[in-house]
Amino acid sequence: MTRVVSYAVRVEFGDCDPAGIVWFPNFFRWIDAASRHFFIACGVPPWAETTQTLGVIGTPLVDTHAKFVKTATYGDALQIDTSIAEWRGKSFVQRYRVLRGDDLLMACEEVRIFAGRRDDGSLFAHAIPPSIRALCE
Amino acid sequence: MTRVVSYAVRVEFGDCDPAGIVWFPNFFRWIDAASRHFFIACGVPPWAETTQTLGVIGTPLVDTHAKFVKTATYGDALQIDTSIAEWRGKSFVQRYRVLRGDDLLMACEEVRIFAGRRDDGSLFAHAIPPSIRALCE
Amino acid sequence: MTRVVSYAVRVEFGDCDPAGIVWFPNFFRWIDAASRHFFIACGVPPWAETTQTLGVIGTPLVDTHAKFVKTATYGDALQIDTSIAEWRGKSFVQRYRVLRGDDLLMACEEVRIFAGRRDDGSLFAHAIPPSIRALCE
Amino acid sequence: MTRVVSYAVRVEFGDCDPAGIVWFPNFFRWIDAASRHFFIACGVPPWAETTQTLGVIGTPLVDTHAKFVKTATYGDALQIDTSIAEWRGKSFVQRYRVLRGDDLLMACEEVRIFAGRRDDGSLFAHAIPPSIRALCE
Repeated sequence: MTRVVSYAVRVEFGDCDPAGIVWFPNFFRWIDAASRHFFIACGVPPWAETTQTLGVIGTPLVDTHAKFVKTATYGDALQIDTSIAEWRGKSFVQRYRVLRGDDLLMACEEVRIFAGRRDDGSLFAHAIPPSIRALCE
Repeated sequence: MTRVVSYAVRVEFGDCDPAGIVWFPNFFRWIDAASRHFFIACGVPPWAETTQTLGVIGTPLVDTHAKFVKTATYGDALQIDTSIAEWRGKSFVQRYRVLRGDDLLMACEEVRIFAGRRDDGSLFAHAIPPSIRALCE
Repeated sequence: MTRVVSYAVRVEFGDCDPAGIVWFPNFFRWIDAASRHFFIACGVPPWAETTQTLGVIGTPLVDTHAKFVKTATYGDALQIDTSIAEWRGKSFVQRYRVLRGDDLLMACEEVRIFAGRRDDGSLFAHAIPPSIRALCE
Repeated sequence: MTRVVSYAVRVEFGDCDPAGIVWFPNFFRWIDAASRHFFIACGVPPWAETTQTLGVIGTPLVDTHAKFVKTATYGDALQIDTSIAEWRGKSFVQRYRVLRGDDLLMACEEVRIFAGRRDDGSLFAHAIPPSIRALCE
């Protein structure tokens, strides 16, 4: 059974564009927050701590695919249901459903990595850390 | 031959996250600007004007798929090459390549519509307006 | 006695800059949300409704003065205490205290107006609508 | 004579709110970029470099005061004129004028510091580094 963690979003006036609806990059802002919230809710320490313990500085995005089904506007209360759809060798698939009550507004599926940083500053993909995976399942 | 319009982006300090790299929702912010800039460069009037003349209030996003290849940081000068990859009946595919010099940082393909607004405030997809398509080809 | 309304903020990873602290424009993002939330909590209808009933399209900012006392980072839970410090003829002073527990992080005082829109699209300041003021006191 | 550096801004659709005008936190986003651009234009190295050479990680904001005079909307081309109005012992006053052609849209005056970081991660204000001041005058 897949673990699902919910994250609540209030849509604000400034999140909306001249058409009166949420400007789409804000959906990605909330999805990134929901991604991190998923790990925190599973008991994974903050990235500032895993940087020290595991060399994991965060979970940068490699690929994202999103469908926008319905619009939202300010005053709306949204819920983002987040889960991990697949664990791969050096990446994982994180899945999101953005809901307003029972209405699906947006669905998104991402590929992310657990990133480390080389001495020259560049990033690389760790093999999935077993301690993190164990907390998330 | 497909028309390609370039849009220049300067990456700023505030566009970057605690890992020191561009926070990904900002890429979508720039892509949305590049999308509008494409139409303006083709001679399509601003949406405020097409709202009056064609009932087109803008080009909301229906679907987006993006690959993140390399990171960027503040001080970087980026170029977004935008084109229309496909015209469909009531939607179109807009394609983006985000470059730093010759390096591809991000590739993105979107489905968008030319939206009208119903009396009840909801949006709908117009058939592609021939006058807009003619300007863009 | 002045009415105070609290608004809760979670600081997210993407709200922080390469120095690892909240990038200051995000404080203004939250303050704008707290401003609107104050009116909603007082029972003032959404601006979409007051546009119809009172010709009030919102409360644009005329002047703001903010002091930044302590920094915040992602994972922090903040509280913004909002009140109206003064009613003037055609404007009002809205005051904010951004707190993390008992620590004051930022204090801000703004002058805003209740804006109407002229036929040519420009904005003007209404005299303070008595029905709104009565709800807020 | 005070040195003035100009920074160009294009207002985009997503910078505007449901009232069709620039949402004010975006002015602060641009002002922060103009602040950094001022130092770069004066020949000050990027903060990533001054962190190594001078222990200066950036110029966090201590106080800001802004007046909003006229609104802007998408398609507008703005210019931000930035100067340093005053050098103090451990802080400086940075001044901005946001213009659209000859029209003043917003004026802003900030107090900033050149920040260092202590071993416990907290920030402190350096005495103004003479090498930076010399470049900016």
